[in-house]
Amino acid sequence: MIAADAVALEDRVRIDDLYARYAAVLDDADFEAWPDFFTGDATYKVIARENHDRGLPLALLAFESRDMLRDRVYAVTQTLFHEPYYQRHLITGIHARRDDDGFAVRANYCVVRTKAGALSEVYSAGRYDDRVVDDGGDLRFARKLVVFDSELIPNSLIYPL
Amino acid sequence: MIAADAVALEDRVRIDDLYARYAAVLDDADFEAWPDFFTGDATYKVIARENHDRGLPLALLAFESRDMLRDRVYAVTQTLFHEPYYQRHLITGIHARRDDDGFAVRANYCVVRTKAGALSEVYSAGRYDDRVVDDGGDLRFARKLVVFDSELIPNSLIYPL
Amino acid sequence: MIAADAVALEDRVRIDDLYARYAAVLDDADFEAWPDFFTGDATYKVIARENHDRGLPLALLAFESRDMLRDRVYAVTQTLFHEPYYQRHLITGIHARRDDDGFAVRANYCVVRTKAGALSEVYSAGRYDDRVVDDGGDLRFARKLVVFDSELIPNSLIYPL
Repeated sequence: MIAADAVALEDRVRIDDLYARYAAVLDDADFEAWPDFFTGDATYKVIARENHDRGLPLALLAFESRDMLRDRVYAVTQTLFHEPYYQRHLITGIHARRDDDGFAVRANYCVVRTKAGALSEVYSAGRYDDRVVDDGGDLRFARKLVVFDSELIPNSLIYPL
Repeated sequence: MIAADAVALEDRVRIDDLYARYAAVLDDADFEAWPDFFTGDATYKVIARENHDRGLPLALLAFESRDMLRDRVYAVTQTLFHEPYYQRHLITGIHARRDDDGFAVRANYCVVRTKAGALSEVYSAGRYDDRVVDDGGDLRFARKLVVFDSELIPNSLIYPL
Repeated sequence: MIAADAVALEDRVRIDDLYARYAAVLDDADFEAWPDFFTGDATYKVIARENHDRGLPLALLAFESRDMLRDRVYAVTQTLFHEPYYQRHLITGIHARRDDDGFAVRANYCVVRTKAGALSEVYSAGRYDDRVVDDGGDLRFARKLVVFDSELIPNSLIYPL
């Protein structure tokens, strides 16, 4: 059970804003702005819940620096052949705990996807298990771990979650 | 990218409450109370994301005063022939920026619809791009712009989003 | 219409945290921790919106003490034969009003379900209509009323909402 730890009110507000802006940038398909949410040596991993719970290392995506995230953005926007779709992030239950050099933040997410000429549908649901740090005055992700509940849909994962 | 601007804490709280009450009123089907969330000369527009992004003016719904919203409520509750359904609003990522005479507020929304004898399903997802002002002590929408991701489902849009 | 009542900021924060932790515990399938969110004589009821709106008493689930919730957890984890599934709670629009001895809290919820080898899907959507009290320094539910919009899916309801 997650304890209700003391996080200063202004930090809660900054963390809430971080997630709101993160969702807005991705849902606006402003992918070039996405790596800026991360520290230079940040890790970003997308892993199935079943693998994560069993301690299996196999992840769908795993990047170990902001430069790798920039490479991914280049691939997504320039080279990967894919059918475009809209994303809509619903991020709820944001809960932060303070520790030595930042915040451990957990949140639930659900991404609704809309393809051209199709209905909106649940695309991926799961949780974020993140480390957030103050990076020269801005909050950034030092680690973003996306644990998704279903293994099916994200096989065609193109855009960041 | 949306900047993290300084909105006073009490204003954040009031804005969060505005959206919570807005969702509650619509989801309770208390449509008569809906126009009260708007200023007298408010605009309310529901537009497909594709049209909005291309600068095309064609909107699914467009009203230019609170009186027009009252007319819409009358139509919805008294004259429009439609199969009733329940709405459930999930409004997340509320993010406000202060400007001269109010707040520019953006949020993501997803409406889950339930028809009689049917499963709950994603009905519409998109974003709100709103102007909120203090109107005699109460926060109200001076503009509510609903940009929906999918063009399909809202063809049968009856109730306000 | 729900009024925007004065709830102290620190209470809002505690209430937000309560719902975030509640969602996290259920979504982690940490069911043994679930009864601890309730007072000793709490009531927990899951009822269809149609029955609730008509004043019909028939509920899908109704428990009248924390001990009954513990019995339910035992049934869910030990005796009920069921196909496991993942839950993901999206709780939004949390809105509290202070009254004599606690808080009346309303929120919207949507639970996304994922079965093994299947897509994530909307499982249940509806609202919480709760009473929250300070119980020896911790906020707990003295009443949790889950009003779900669709009567269909929850026929197979196993885990708490």
